Amino acid sequence: MSKIPYKIYLNESEMPTAWYNLRADMKTKPAPLLNPGTHEPMSASDLAPVFCDELIQQELDNDTRYFEIPEEILNFYKMYRPSPLVRAYCLEKKLGTPAKIYYKFEGNNTSGSHKLNSASAQAYYAKKQGLKGVTTETGAGQWGTALSMACSYFDLDCKVFMVKVSYEQKPFRREVMRTYGASVTPSPSMETKIGQKILADHPGTTGSLGCAISEAVEVATSTPGYRYVLGSVLNQVLLHQSVIGLETKAALDKYGIKPDIIIGCAGGGSNLGGLIAPFMGEKLRGEADYRIIAVEPASCPSFTRGKFAYDFADTGMVCPLAKMYTLGSNFIPAPNHAGGLRYHGMSPVLSQLYHDGYMEAISVKQTDVFAAAEQFARVEGILPAPESAHAIKAAIDEALKCKETGEEKTIVFGLTGTGYFDMVAYEKFHDGKMDDYIPTDEELEASFATLPKVE
Amino acid sequence: MSKIPYKIYLNESEMPTAWYNLRADMKTKPAPLLNPGTHEPMSASDLAPVFCDELIQQELDNDTRYFEIPEEILNFYKMYRPSPLVRAYCLEKKLGTPAKIYYKFEGNNTSGSHKLNSASAQAYYAKKQGLKGVTTETGAGQWGTALSMACSYFDLDCKVFMVKVSYEQKPFRREVMRTYGASVTPSPSMETKIGQKILADHPGTTGSLGCAISEAVEVATSTPGYRYVLGSVLNQVLLHQSVIGLETKAALDKYGIKPDIIIGCAGGGSNLGGLIAPFMGEKLRGEADYRIIAVEPASCPSFTRGKFAYDFADTGMVCPLAKMYTLGSNFIPAPNHAGGLRYHGMSPVLSQLYHDGYMEAISVKQTDVFAAAEQFARVEGILPAPESAHAIKAAIDEALKCKETGEEKTIVFGLTGTGYFDMVAYEKFHDGKMDDYIPTDEELEASFATLPKVE
Repeated sequence: MSKIPYKIYLNESEMPTAWYNLRADMKTKPAPLLNPGTHEPMSASDLAPVFCDELIQQELDNDTRYFEIPEEILNFYKMYRPSPLVRAYCLEKKLGTPAKIYYKFEGNNTSGSHKLNSASAQAYYAKKQGLKGVTTETGAGQWGTALSMACSYFDLDCKVFMVKVSYEQKPFRREVMRTYGASVTPSPSMETKIGQKILADHPGTTGSLGCAISEAVEVATSTPGYRYVLGSVLNQVLLHQSVIGLETKAALDKYGIKPDIIIGCAGGGSNLGGLIAPFMGEKLRGEADYRIIAVEPASCPSFTRGKFAYDFADTGMVCPLAKMYTLGSNFIPAPNHAGGLRYHGMSPVLSQLYHDGYMEAISVKQTDVFAAAEQFARVEGILPAPESAHAIKAAIDEALKCKETGEEKTIVFGLTGTGYFDMVAYEKFHDGKMDDYIPTDEELEASFATLPKVE
Repeated sequence: MSKIPYKIYLNESEMPTAWYNLRADMKTKPAPLLNPGTHEPMSASDLAPVFCDELIQQELDNDTRYFEIPEEILNFYKMYRPSPLVRAYCLEKKLGTPAKIYYKFEGNNTSGSHKLNSASAQAYYAKKQGLKGVTTETGAGQWGTALSMACSYFDLDCKVFMVKVSYEQKPFRREVMRTYGASVTPSPSMETKIGQKILADHPGTTGSLGCAISEAVEVATSTPGYRYVLGSVLNQVLLHQSVIGLETKAALDKYGIKPDIIIGCAGGGSNLGGLIAPFMGEKLRGEADYRIIAVEPASCPSFTRGKFAYDFADTGMVCPLAKMYTLGSNFIPAPNHAGGLRYHGMSPVLSQLYHDGYMEAISVKQTDVFAAAEQFARVEGILPAPESAHAIKAAIDEALKCKETGEEKTIVFGLTGTGYFDMVAYEKFHDGKMDDYIPTDEELEASFATLPKVE
């Protein structure tokens, strides 16, 4: 082994103390959120009934380069950060590649994913504002779990609307949230007007993320002392998640390592935007160049087959419009076990960067993703979440290209979380019962037809 | 906050490079294993058909103080060690105690528990001996998972006999093992003679740990190139697990911290024996004094209500006799969700030390354990395994005593693993459907009647 340790940990003194706002270095800023009725840009006061005040400032600020991380959040981060940057020596050996592979492992906390980085920040600002609680939706459950933990720590009430089919199929996720004191309601529910309407119109529906968002927003805006929080897509979330990339860069710099390729899975963009932030910043400022690759499921290919257009953030069409790569807010992703990547849209920041040619995107098939996950688990030990395994698949492919060409490229990818709650999916894979769904062009065209017309 | 960091990590250079053999410092050595037929002490050659040769040497060696950890195992340990020693600042604050609480967290690996420390060692020695594979049994699944991971890493076949009721009730554990390439067979099975006999005698049985042990031993001894491995109770296992205590002591010494009380949960003794090893060594040599507390479930109280006697290690009565605190090998623990603590016996090393007055033991009720687990999770973030939560319960009780007396005692406890696969138990607790089973004196007397008569 070389002098690079198996795991690079930062000392507490080496940890980032400010989040990096990538937007400050973008020549073309992400397009503003629009009021869904008037199509006017949303102002801070427009957003105030829904979001916490300080988070709105972060959401709208395209210029401030660094936001100091409050001490309370730094203390929370100490519970599970720094996360390790791991040199995948065993995977390299197994692949027989001259490439050097590193992964930033964000699963070393009870929520099992990187979601905690933003959940803790959002819970903190809600508490600081004197709120009683927050509402949110969760699909696969990673975000809901992370938010429950953060709310428990900051002594804040937490109401989670969980897509009914997940609520029933993932009872363990639900119980983790309850352990942390959150109330978890299957969506659609009778607790909201929108839920009542949906249940009346579609009796027996198993729910959708869009419906759960609508219910969470309704409760937040109709209950005094409550606001709504969201785990991905938003600019503020990417800001908080920049801690992933800042730590990664600090760890690499400590050993003088310069990556050639940076890879992350992409659903709403929270992990990818966080991981690449400081590297993309250097690229935007012309100080360095990197290949940056977003990996998405072939079943929900926002970047690779979507349109760059204004669209509703939710299926219920109550949230602001965002300009992003989208498959249309009515797009129903085919069944896929990477629940965290089943979102029709994409972070406006990442969408703009992709549109401007600063990053690449590829889509991968589900069965290939699970094969890569298993190969990785067997040599590196960690059991990856299906979402994370998208990045693994792409990293392995790049490393195998290096094997062919003999190039000693340095590849860094984000390992966003663990797969403990995804064993049903692994079981299907083991039993050869997993399918690769890919939407047809006709399906996408039908979905694009629902895009709102914005001048 | 004081200068003690939230988490104390050791550098790679500070990590232990040798296991500590507590037996070397015991004045009264643990009694030898006996042949179940002749009641003669088992020699190395008696044990050779069942266990790997080097592991037998470790099992029988009461004198060598340190065993160097082979480089291959040190490399494996680097994947997830050092484990953090965490100062429970948030728990202390929540309890309002002047006590200082630390926990050694062993759950930061995919197996989710400390079991990997010995699984990797046993797999390594099996591979070194040129074996094709190993067999074992698993109940709750932590040991089976750990062994699957270790065998995958060392390229060794792994056959796991999983108690049928667990196989059916914990499909996710089973799938994790399959992900790592292990074959998992529900026990009793038709693959062994003993399994066939049990199924013929008791059609519809859901199995037991004792039966699974018997099947695993039969396959190991009847298949060329295979041996049997075990995850607790044995002297060799405590030796490997000493890495927990050695790291803990190194981390405490680094900051000049001297614990007053050391607490661990006790099932077969693998975690407790490992955690306390170097501290108990100092105590045995008269260099320091510590209160050392074993915590066991009230439903399976080997130390607190068992007899110190020779007994069968397995229900099938095919394994050697061990002198230990035991409830009788026919004892069927009442339903309890801490599956890893449901063993009728106890490590002979720990049994001798308890008998000689070097440690204390207490038993705690299941509902109290889950209440402590939830309290801990909400402030410290980590979701504990039910087994680990026994130690949490005792640590909280000691910290609350300090609150009454005003004493600033330093308490260290072992947090052996995570509870991701135990959410059924948490759900019962949340729903108020959890019972506290405690065996009656009559039940214990009936079980003691099955103890073998050893001169």
